[in-house]
Amino acid sequence: MLKLFHAQGSCALASRIALEDAGADYDLVRVDLANGEQRRPEFLAVNPKGRVPALVTDKGVLTETPAILAYIAQTFPEAGLAPLADPYEFARLQAFNSYLCSTVHVNHAHGRRGSRWADAQSSFDDMKRKVPETMAAAMKMIELDYFEGPWVMGEQYTVADAYLFTIERWLAGDGVDIADFPAIADHHRRMSARASVGRALA
Amino acid sequence: MLKLFHAQGSCALASRIALEDAGADYDLVRVDLANGEQRRPEFLAVNPKGRVPALVTDKGVLTETPAILAYIAQTFPEAGLAPLADPYEFARLQAFNSYLCSTVHVNHAHGRRGSRWADAQSSFDDMKRKVPETMAAAMKMIELDYFEGPWVMGEQYTVADAYLFTIERWLAGDGVDIADFPAIADHHRRMSARASVGRALA
Repeated sequence: MLKLFHAQGSCALASRIALEDAGADYDLVRVDLANGEQRRPEFLAVNPKGRVPALVTDKGVLTETPAILAYIAQTFPEAGLAPLADPYEFARLQAFNSYLCSTVHVNHAHGRRGSRWADAQSSFDDMKRKVPETMAAAMKMIELDYFEGPWVMGEQYTVADAYLFTIERWLAGDGVDIADFPAIADHHRRMSARASVGRALA
Repeated sequence: MLKLFHAQGSCALASRIALEDAGADYDLVRVDLANGEQRRPEFLAVNPKGRVPALVTDKGVLTETPAILAYIAQTFPEAGLAPLADPYEFARLQAFNSYLCSTVHVNHAHGRRGSRWADAQSSFDDMKRKVPETMAAAMKMIELDYFEGPWVMGEQYTVADAYLFTIERWLAGDGVDIADFPAIADHHRRMSARASVGRALA
């Protein structure tokens, strides 16, 4: 059986929503980041990176949200969570998720994890001050250039919607008013109403 | 025909190597980052992000290295550049590429693109000082936990090798001695000897 290591408020929510969308049978293990559980030997044996999400499968452990989301879509094809039959459309989905992972999540992380990339408190403060600007710029780009509507990829709901929703939940804490981005705000409302999202947030 | 927008020294090299490995017919367009060509309207019309790589296909433009690499592997299946038949192995490949994109490339970028995440020169200097440490830590993790050998994924050469090679070329400039990581140094030597890599670097 699948087992998802997750943490409250983390990007692992995207994988959890996708598992719910897929109708997957899975166990959930909460990692207490505030208490440093992610750095304990038991967890590092699961994921040497000391991060969530980590998805334990029959074959081994998968990490990195874009990889896990594509894996869920591919192993539950009947759920229709990705355009699996068309390499271009699949790549477009992957490009969206990769942007969230390597640009948007990274922008967000500078508000609280500055010590990954610098050492001085003044640098952390400087990074933190810039988060509202970088997160708003990313949301603007998504809204103008990448969000097809009504879902990220257009008519088909995909795992990208679960990932975008996860990041939408960070915006208020990052000093961004989601109402400034009407398509994204509407997406957030529709996602919040989905039963799979309700179960994932329970 | 495919058209790859790239820049010297950028991560677009990974996509170029993969296109060579695939035996693809493609045009190459160089974007002069030093002269700000990536911010000109002509290029922003191709890629609103103002970044390379961008791969123009018959259906539209693809961005983000992990997405482009998987697309090349999927559309040239006879080249055997990814474990396409096994969703777990494919996800393992994608997790590797996602780590390079969202952690390792991001670490590297703090040495020269600090203004993405902060505003003060002191912050940029602080970030730049930390690059040797974060890049070495990433190489250590790859060598110990993710590099199967002789190639990234094991016996099968994949697009992940092209991506790792691209980042290996940044290590000296990032203050990291590749010789500290024997498996990665050996990988670099064997990659450098490949004809596809020679053509991509020409």
